[in-house]
Formats: sequence, C-alpha cells, structure tokens
Amino acid sequence: MADEKQGYPQYPIEETLTVFWEDGKVAMIDQRILPETFQINYYETYEAVADAIKAMVVRGAPAIGASAGFGMAIAAQQSTATTVDDLRTDLKRAGDVLAKSRPTAVNLFWGIERMLKTADDPGLTTVEQAKARLLDEAQQIAEEDIATNQRMGAFGAELVPENATIIHHCNTGSLAAVAWGTALGVVRSAFFAGKNVRVLVDETRPRLQGARLTSWELKNLGIDHAIIVDGASGHYLRRGEADLCLVGADRIAANGDTANKIGTYNLAVVAHENNVPFYVVAPFSTIDFRTPTGDDIEIEERSQEEVTRVAGHQIAPEGVSAGNPAFDVTPHRYITAIVTERGVVRPPFDVNLRALAAAPVSEA
Amino acid sequence: MADEKQGYPQYPIEETLTVFWEDGKVAMIDQRILPETFQINYYETYEAVADAIKAMVVRGAPAIGASAGFGMAIAAQQSTATTVDDLRTDLKRAGDVLAKSRPTAVNLFWGIERMLKTADDPGLTTVEQAKARLLDEAQQIAEEDIATNQRMGAFGAELVPENATIIHHCNTGSLAAVAWGTALGVVRSAFFAGKNVRVLVDETRPRLQGARLTSWELKNLGIDHAIIVDGASGHYLRRGEADLCLVGADRIAANGDTANKIGTYNLAVVAHENNVPFYVVAPFSTIDFRTPTGDDIEIEERSQEEVTRVAGHQIAPEGVSAGNPAFDVTPHRYITAIVTERGVVRPPFDVNLRALAAAPVSEA
Repeated sequence: MADEKQGYPQYPIEETLTVFWEDGKVAMIDQRILPETFQINYYETYEAVADAIKAMVVRGAPAIGASAGFGMAIAAQQSTATTVDDLRTDLKRAGDVLAKSRPTAVNLFWGIERMLKTADDPGLTTVEQAKARLLDEAQQIAEEDIATNQRMGAFGAELVPENATIIHHCNTGSLAAVAWGTALGVVRSAFFAGKNVRVLVDETRPRLQGARLTSWELKNLGIDHAIIVDGASGHYLRRGEADLCLVGADRIAANGDTANKIGTYNLAVVAHENNVPFYVVAPFSTIDFRTPTGDDIEIEERSQEEVTRVAGHQIAPEGVSAGNPAFDVTPHRYITAIVTERGVVRPPFDVNLRALAAAPVSEA
Repeated sequence: MADEKQGYPQYPIEETLTVFWEDGKVAMIDQRILPETFQINYYETYEAVADAIKAMVVRGAPAIGASAGFGMAIAAQQSTATTVDDLRTDLKRAGDVLAKSRPTAVNLFWGIERMLKTADDPGLTTVEQAKARLLDEAQQIAEEDIATNQRMGAFGAELVPENATIIHHCNTGSLAAVAWGTALGVVRSAFFAGKNVRVLVDETRPRLQGARLTSWELKNLGIDHAIIVDGASGHYLRRGEADLCLVGADRIAANGDTANKIGTYNLAVVAHENNVPFYVVAPFSTIDFRTPTGDDIEIEERSQEEVTRVAGHQIAPEGVSAGNPAFDVTPHRYITAIVTERGVVRPPFDVNLRALAAAPVSEA
C-alpha cells in the first residue's frame, strides 16, 4: 500500500473486504442479513450491481463509491463493443443506470465519473486495453479507499482523548467502506493507538445499521460498546457521559453542511447544546463543491415498510403511513470539524474546504 | 361526569377503558400485544397488578396512577383482616409492593398515597365499610382521570393552530390513561373541535409505543398521521414541516424539569433550536413538589433485551450490551408550557406551578 512510505500507521485488514473483484465478478458482503448470516454475493452485470446498491446489499458512501467503480468495470467486461468509442457509449449507459440507484451519496457519482474519465483517455486504442485499464482503475479506487480511511483514522485519532466515550451513528466501519471505515475507522485507529475507547452505538432506525453492523464490527475488534436507541443519545450527553460524537457523511456541501443518515442532525444539535464535540469523518471525495449548501442536497425517501416493519415483522397497524427520509442535513454550525484524508478541517468550512481542495495533496 | 356542569366540552369515550374494575377483578387492556391482538387481562391480587405494571401490560403515567388505585382496592378485597387497623396494615404492605413496580412515574406513588389516606379516615369503623370506601375511591380516581384529560384537552386545543402538524412522542392517548389521554388527548380535542390536525408519530424505541399504540389510536379515531423514526423529528422540524410538539410526562419536578419517555429530551432540544413550541401535557398529580429538579428524579433502567430484540427477533449480535434508560429529563428551559387540568402554566415554572398549586381549583 502506497502509504507505508508516507509514514501513516498501517494496520492489518483482517476482515473480508466489503466489495471486491473476484473472477470477473463484483463480490459484496450482503449487509442486509448481517449479523445473523455472513454471505458474499456475486454480480455479473452492472444492472445487478445497481440493484444491489439500491437494495442496500452494500451501503455507506465510500463503499458505494467503490461499488460504482466495480459496476463500471463489469459494464466494460459485459460490453460487446468492438471499438473504444462504442465501449465509451456502453459505459455512459451503465453510468446512467448506476447513478439512479441512490441519489444522496455523492461518492456514487464521483466513482462513475472517475471511471468515465478513465475511459476517455485518448491513449486507449483497443477495447481489450480499455477494459483492462478500467478494471485497474476500479481496483485503484478500492485500494485508495483503504489508504484514505487509514489516513483519516490517524488524523481523527488525535482528536480522541486517552479515555473516551464516543457516540456513533449508523455504520461507518469496514462495512461502509472497502475496509477500515471512516468515523468508525477513527475509533479503530484510536483503539489500536492504545486509547481507552468505549462506543455508545446509536442503533440507527429504521435499518438498524448501528445495532446490526457497527456492534458486529466492534464485537469482532474487541472494542467496548453498548447499543442505545437513537432517542437516548441526549440522555448520555446531558449527563456528561459522552465525550465526543463521530459520524460519517453521504455528501458534504461546499459550506460544510452535511447529509448523513437520518438522526444525525438530532445528534448534532443535542451534542452542540451540551458542548460536546461533533466530528464528521469522510473522504475528500464526499465533499461536493457543486452543491453550495445542504438545502441543495436531494434527500432519498425510502419505502414506508422500513419503518412499519422490523426484521420482517409488522410493528404498526396494517395500512398506517410512515415517513422515511433516509438522510438528514446537519447545518455546518453544529459541526466541530470535518476529518478528511487531507487533514482536519475546522470552521469557517466554506473557506477552509476550498483551501484544502486547492492545496497540493500532502500529509503536512 | 362532574365536568358537564362546568362547561367543558364532553365527548363520548368510545373505547374500552384502559384499566377498570369488573366483577371483583382489575381489568386491563394488554398493551404488550397491541396492535396485533386486543385482549383484556384480569388480575385478582395486588401482586399480580404490580407485576402487570412492571411488565408494562399497562403503562402511561395516568394509567399507572389509576392502576395503583385499583391495585390497592383489590388488596383491600383480598385482605382477611377483621379490624380496620389490620386492613390498614395489609394496605401498607400492598402499597410497598406496588410502589416497587416502576420508579419514575410519580402518579404511581400518588395513587397509592391517596388510597392509604382514604383508608386512614377515622370515620371508617368496619372492614366492609372500609373495603367499599376504598373501591369507591379507586373508581373515583379513574373517573377523575377522564374528566381531567378532557379538561387538559380543552386547554391544550387552544394552543393548536387551525392547521397543524404535530410531532408526538411515545403514547399519551387513551391507552396511557383511563381514557382520552394527555398529549394525545389534546390532539383528540383539537380534532373534535374541527381543527385540521396531522400527527408525525415518533415510533418511540425501544418499546415502539408510538408505532404500536399511538398509530392504532389515531387510526381508530380517523386522525391523519404518519409514523417516523425517532431520529427523523429534527429533519421535519428544520424544514418547517412541524408546527408544535406535544408530549406527556412521568414526573414533573417543582422547577418544571420533566421526566418522560426516552427520546423526549432530544425532541425538545431540536424543537427549541428550531423555535417550534414544545408542550408538556400532564395532570396536576404528575407534578412532584417534593422533587426540586429533574436531576433528583430516579431514571428506571430496563432490560437490555428491549433494545437488542424487536418483536421477539434478535437484531444485534448475540452477547452485545445495551444501555436502556426508560426515561430522560428535559430541563424546563426547553418547555414552552405545561398543560394541566388547572390551566396552562408558562415559565417561570418554579413560581407558576406553586401558584397554581396554591390557587383554589377552578376553571377560570
């Protein structure tokens, strides 16, 4: 991994990667059935990859970005084009289909665009060469994701006190990325750095990514934690029983407003009210400079059944309606800092995010 | 009902009462199995009533208060005492057992104490007379509860705009009282007064009283509503899609700090941050002048399984810990007003609650 020479701490990735390429197929851990069942699904078409993203076989902004890369790579493999230009046309069609899978996480669009840009390389002269180059690029996206997460982990771990109780929302661990994770990657890095960390795991209704996935990862890592219902975070914050909050992001607007899993905004406001630091941890690719503010981010509304049913069991009376926004927007004023692989960004975010975008990428 | 002559609007109670006396038994709707199954359980001993309160067959502060009254009445029936003094001793023992069922709702202690005070009447000379008097008192508590709720409903409905989207937490409806309800009673009163109300129903993890019970009541009443996960309230509040919040209370300290179902504090803070009124609706008996502030209220910690299992289905990895505070405390500064059957109390609550306690009870 490229980072070893750059002085970032590197820890072994012991888990199966969340999304990876195997024998001409896109492989994904099926996150819908964890923690009961650990299963790898294999997809042979970009349409199947798009469906898997939509159905949340894979979720988490960085993992969706990598899945988009592999989805484009499999579209290239599928293509019967005999010229590079025809292959590019096929890829654009695949990109359009993949882009419709989920609207909020910008990493999806970033992954598709990066692959389209790769295909546009005028140096590509044969279809075989282009297909190989595209698979290589998808692999590169996935490898970079792990390195990026470990950098964020190192930066973020410096913000974690020696003894810390951390409130964490949703899942931002290995399963939300290719490996390591973003906000939960910071927890992992702090833990491996010898800090005494404990996590209060927001269960994260409706899909329970916290109770199902984050607790599974923390249990596997041997990190102390307790699941809490999302409404309980304030109880702990008000009593001084939590030291910081760590969350990921699905899209960060140019002004720092952050779209993330529903419930993030409530947590941010209550943390702010109790003077507890609230950190967003996300790769730089999550920052969407074309989106000026959080109000410009499309919020995905998912099916009512995610609310009215739990684990296949109807909990509400039949026929009752539910509202199910998958994400909310946390205005930047509630965010203490944004941790990226390029460093920790503090307010004013509009100025400092742009400055980091303009700066040469180095590890200061 | 006594209120009819006092000019309060009286609407028919069409539902089965939540708790009532029938043929020498305490009858309760079993709220653990709604909305799937509507079933009345019958209890013949005060120990069984205490267990039912503990297991949450019945819940909701006013309903617990009435259940305590009936529990004491059944203790009197059970008693084999041959003197009134011995009966009083038996009742004290029953009161001690009932008092241990749940620690937070003050109405429990209020109900027990009211029954003990009734038994202390020196005018009671025979055991039979005392038993009849105690059953009468328990019935009186239950009847007063309905009248009290309808008064609160009338006061509270005046705070509801003609067209209003209301966020409601937990269940505070008919099922949380003997009938009508507190916060949801206000919704009912506003609806019957012809207002165009819509309710965003916090599902209220871990026990899902909102998704299971509040939606069931609203559906039966024909009131427009949608269930939302608890973490989504801020999303609607921030976008200006909710006009007010209505919640009940399990105990109100002398300074107005309010203990209520876990998640209430988060909702209150986010409502406050968005300048949306946050109203607590509770009978005057919920105000505990012996508790100076919210920090003096004992918060019940319930079993971890309420968090790690939903509808009998394990959602978290086996062996993972959970924190499960059943209530939280909302400091009074987040509360716009407290609606009681004696009127609407506004800040400063420490002064104005005491003033209302001292004032002669009238309907000004």
